[in-house]
Amino acid sequence: MGTVQRETRVPSFETHPSRYRHWKLQIDGSVATLLMDVVEAGGLRDDYLLKQNSYDMGVDVELSDAIERLRFEHPEVRCCVITSAQPKVFCAGANILMLASSTHGFKVNFCRYTNETRLGMEDASMRSGLRFLAACNGTAAGGGYELALAADEIWLIDDGNAAVSLPEVPLLAVLPGTGGLTRLVDKRKVRRDLADVFCTRAEGMRARDALKMGLIDGTYARSKWTDGMATEARRLADRPARSERGIALLPLEIEVSADGRHRRGKHTELRIDADRRVAELTVFAPTGAAPSDEAALSDGGCRTWSMAAFRELENHLLELRFHQDVVGVITVRASGDARAVLAHDAALASLAGTWLADEIRWYQGRVLRRFDQTARSLFAIAEPGSCFAGSLLELALAADRVYMKDAGGTAIHVGPGQDGTWPTTTGASRLAVRFLGEPEKVGEAVAAGGPLDASEAMERGLVTFAPDDIDWDEEVRIAIEERTSLSPDALTGMEASLRFTGRESMVSRVFGRLSAWQNGIYIRPNAVGETGALKVYGTGSRAKFNWERV
Amino acid sequence: MGTVQRETRVPSFETHPSRYRHWKLQIDGSVATLLMDVVEAGGLRDDYLLKQNSYDMGVDVELSDAIERLRFEHPEVRCCVITSAQPKVFCAGANILMLASSTHGFKVNFCRYTNETRLGMEDASMRSGLRFLAACNGTAAGGGYELALAADEIWLIDDGNAAVSLPEVPLLAVLPGTGGLTRLVDKRKVRRDLADVFCTRAEGMRARDALKMGLIDGTYARSKWTDGMATEARRLADRPARSERGIALLPLEIEVSADGRHRRGKHTELRIDADRRVAELTVFAPTGAAPSDEAALSDGGCRTWSMAAFRELENHLLELRFHQDVVGVITVRASGDARAVLAHDAALASLAGTWLADEIRWYQGRVLRRFDQTARSLFAIAEPGSCFAGSLLELALAADRVYMKDAGGTAIHVGPGQDGTWPTTTGASRLAVRFLGEPEKVGEAVAAGGPLDASEAMERGLVTFAPDDIDWDEEVRIAIEERTSLSPDALTGMEASLRFTGRESMVSRVFGRLSAWQNGIYIRPNAVGETGALKVYGTGSRAKFNWERV
Repeated sequence: MGTVQRETRVPSFETHPSRYRHWKLQIDGSVATLLMDVVEAGGLRDDYLLKQNSYDMGVDVELSDAIERLRFEHPEVRCCVITSAQPKVFCAGANILMLASSTHGFKVNFCRYTNETRLGMEDASMRSGLRFLAACNGTAAGGGYELALAADEIWLIDDGNAAVSLPEVPLLAVLPGTGGLTRLVDKRKVRRDLADVFCTRAEGMRARDALKMGLIDGTYARSKWTDGMATEARRLADRPARSERGIALLPLEIEVSADGRHRRGKHTELRIDADRRVAELTVFAPTGAAPSDEAALSDGGCRTWSMAAFRELENHLLELRFHQDVVGVITVRASGDARAVLAHDAALASLAGTWLADEIRWYQGRVLRRFDQTARSLFAIAEPGSCFAGSLLELALAADRVYMKDAGGTAIHVGPGQDGTWPTTTGASRLAVRFLGEPEKVGEAVAAGGPLDASEAMERGLVTFAPDDIDWDEEVRIAIEERTSLSPDALTGMEASLRFTGRESMVSRVFGRLSAWQNGIYIRPNAVGETGALKVYGTGSRAKFNWERV
Repeated sequence: MGTVQRETRVPSFETHPSRYRHWKLQIDGSVATLLMDVVEAGGLRDDYLLKQNSYDMGVDVELSDAIERLRFEHPEVRCCVITSAQPKVFCAGANILMLASSTHGFKVNFCRYTNETRLGMEDASMRSGLRFLAACNGTAAGGGYELALAADEIWLIDDGNAAVSLPEVPLLAVLPGTGGLTRLVDKRKVRRDLADVFCTRAEGMRARDALKMGLIDGTYARSKWTDGMATEARRLADRPARSERGIALLPLEIEVSADGRHRRGKHTELRIDADRRVAELTVFAPTGAAPSDEAALSDGGCRTWSMAAFRELENHLLELRFHQDVVGVITVRASGDARAVLAHDAALASLAGTWLADEIRWYQGRVLRRFDQTARSLFAIAEPGSCFAGSLLELALAADRVYMKDAGGTAIHVGPGQDGTWPTTTGASRLAVRFLGEPEKVGEAVAAGGPLDASEAMERGLVTFAPDDIDWDEEVRIAIEERTSLSPDALTGMEASLRFTGRESMVSRVFGRLSAWQNGIYIRPNAVGETGALKVYGTGSRAKFNWERV
């Protein structure tokens, strides 16, 4: 695979509508419009042009930002219309030249992130009741149609030209890997033989056939399109607002050292030891009082610990995924007063049903699911002074292993919401995933609460190892050294198989089945070899395939 | 990956206990013993030795044969003990040198087959009540422990030495891909952090720790081992026999042309067009009368059409998988009198609850699931004179597409058992998988029965395309040509995502999640590159890894 693969740096995972280059967010009462207008020369690298509303990571960071801001800053919005400002094209999907010249690692992380963005749309719809209307006023191809698939409804203009399509298999020898294959049959429940036909037809389907096959929900002729979309958007928005007033998502305050290896936020810290290939991630307990009521929570806004700590955590995770690919093990610590963590959790729980408290807990859930989906070994480390409690205990439950020092001052606390507040991708709680074979232990752990010392935590199956003072340093050190000595590929496959047990969901199928196949296909010569389809795309040459079928 | 990869030819997928080289099948009343004693120099190729009861495809063909024969030839057996004749080792798993020097395609197909063999054990237990006892009288490592995991109970000798282990990740940089990762957490429900520890500890766990972690079901000291295992086997066998007398599984009669491209059985035919990369598979309807009662069925034995046709079909599928890897599309036809197919299905249905009728239908289910899991595009072709009805309609429902000629004399028939007799890997019927979004159509199709002509079959969603006489030849030809022009890798990933919709099961997780990760890992340099762990195993060198984690 000798073609030049270029490294991609994502300048920031934060942005703001005032700085969007590729989208315009317009709000008109209960209806928002996200207008896609990708700047050709606005890609993250200079070796590709973002033609035809094709996207790269920079475009998706803006989309992700817009969706989060709608939930937090604009709770009055009930429907978000996604449409294109460019003639004849809704969105041409992920930019192919960008993919073809990206490293394997970037491709995988880009797909993971864009999948999470689309799942964020569905999460916003399911939980916040924010409906998405994909108004495809031109062709939605590949990732463009996959973006539409994440919406609640897909409407396609009937102009004799616009189509929806998933041309990845016939044109590029890769899968529609941003959930396309899965959503077709699992979400839209398109009959599988029709899905087969659709996914192998590069030109896709225009409105009438697409409607018949269940690929879209409706269509209007060009002359009626604008009015029609307004009507459909009003229909989707016709429900009470969650709140008339949102909170501002202010920029994160994370100090980064000159060498980029030490990142310190207000509530978190990330230290990267590149030589040992270990990242040490610490979340600090709140030091201030928990919000006492809805008004106080609203006043605190995004500075509320429950929100702020998890925003920083998310940022660190993205930094690790995209820019620290030699890190093999992430050690996770929680430091400070467990009672303060539990008090903040309790404050949100007591406000359950009010919009902001709900939004913050759902957001914590999304960040925790990003944590679950982070392809590094996760070791939680509980030492004296640590505070794995409630929402922070979820980090330990998400980890592949938990090391707890059997020494005075080390305790963990199971919070009352631990059996459902922060569901995993399958919908099951992390406790339920842990105790798949002994479901009674979930309730027992919640009833036990805490503080639980090391021996009780071991007894209850909540931690993996509990070495005493004498063995602690060496045991943890050796465990990390052993882990970082193993093959990264094998570990990723192993962890993906062990972390997500029991039932599956559409989401776990996207990450577990679809992504697993795609990741394998991404390294096969038929896609990325010198004459692979992804490499020759746009050159006028035809791909040459090895025909062996396995 | 310049190391020499050698082609492996499987001389036959059929064998008989009298010809076993690596196993001894001993039957003593209701207890059978399968004694593993792999001949070192008895591998399918001469470039590896099958040391320590390690296995290759030849060993697994014998195991698969033994399990089928127990079900059909020895219905009096209620428990099968799997144990080793070699000192200190139960089974060391798949032979590493064999894997390291095999082609990617062979590795994938070998894993698929060995997975099916182990699933066959679980199928025998669940349906036929044939319990398996893995009597690990020595270390069960890697695939050896995965073999044990497929048993109902795992017992490990407590001799201070024998252990169970899954050393694939730490030693070989691949996954325990014969269901190991999945069965640990899904079947045995081992806590996922303990599973993580176990899967990264090359030396595994000896009996006492293994018992605590739920890796085994029991243990005996060496002095009590033989008696103990006899006691446990009697306990598992302590149920009434299904029948005191079985039927013989006679050798298949398949004529193979000199060039190997035409295989003709009594009820089936396979023609391989290597230039077009198409295999044409035809199943012929029965010509004789259906068995009228249990005695007649028993007299017919394995020559009964319902059994004989599916045995031939299975053999063709294995031939295609292992030896015809350039075939991209399998066209499937059913030829003859649909009423005869339905009469044979009805005869078995009317005998449901009698052992042989049940066994034959379960066997048909296993063959159909092998068909589902065959990584080639499957196009069913219904023409005048064809007989896609009942059990043969399942072949069309398993296909990626169904082409039905809209012409007199072409009909399909939905049989009364079509909604559950032949479940897919998830447990759902193929009709239910097809109509995931319109479940009412399952019952409607069964109620409609047949014959259904092309327009009614289209209307009911049972076929994909129904071209008329004029378009037929060209439309089918072009569809096949288009399909065979696409990337084999992308098609395999696409079909794996579209064929298995809706709910998941342990089995679908083995093939969809675990195998997908393993197939990707199998082509990464960390496993199979010049300094990959699989390549350097046994050389004394250490693997060198690319540490990038994605």
